[in-house]
Amino acid sequence: MKQLGTLLAADLTGCNAAVLDDLDKLEEIFKTAAVIAGATVVNSTSFRYAPQGVSVMVVISESHVSTHTWPEYDYAAVDFFTCGESVDPYKGLDYIVQELGATNVQVTEIARGIPSDIAEKLAHKGSS
Amino acid sequence: MKQLGTLLAADLTGCNAAVLDDLDKLEEIFKTAAVIAGATVVNSTSFRYAPQGVSVMVVISESHVSTHTWPEYDYAAVDFFTCGESVDPYKGLDYIVQELGATNVQVTEIARGIPSDIAEKLAHKGSS
Repeated sequence: MKQLGTLLAADLTGCNAAVLDDLDKLEEIFKTAAVIAGATVVNSTSFRYAPQGVSVMVVISESHVSTHTWPEYDYAAVDFFTCGESVDPYKGLDYIVQELGATNVQVTEIARGIPSDIAEKLAHKGSS
Repeated sequence: MKQLGTLLAADLTGCNAAVLDDLDKLEEIFKTAAVIAGATVVNSTSFRYAPQGVSVMVVISESHVSTHTWPEYDYAAVDFFTCGESVDPYKGLDYIVQELGATNVQVTEIARGIPSDIAEKLAHKGSS
């Protein structure tokens, strides 16, 4: 694969439920996490669910960081999508885990990009 | 696992490069895709990279849909994160594939939620 990005899909359990329902604090945590990862924050958007839970999406110059929270289960789904060599999403994720007080983290790392056979054809096209 | 959401991480290649660089059109496509999937659009944010490529993130009541595009490679990374029984992200993804003119699609489906052993403890806690 010609890898263009990396997606960390993280399931955080045992989190602090009050933090998971605090939209302003979560926005702050996720923007800081992006900076800690070495990324540049572009903008963000968020949404509060009824009766509880929030979504926060932070657009970074290197893709995005997002969360959807379920305070009733002390659970947050965190996605950290980055591209480029200068960003380390694991550093940002570590900070999020700490700030949310998660006691368990399961991370699935997914390489994103162009399958090798297609990338090879593109290269040939580019050089023809 | 106590599943709370589903993430489709899709790599689309062979796309129409002009569409991949058209921020307004992509916003429209992704909002429509959310509706086709049975989701409710809450808001969206986007960003244009220099010299090319865009990010579009659409917040839906059932989580999010996002893309980051590389027109120079005819490539788009599409994430479709949904929760609830009434949403079918594959229907929305099919529409995106069609509108972007992708000739190859690779989808990784990831169940998001709470590991079984932790979910069991939560259930006991709830009933005690």
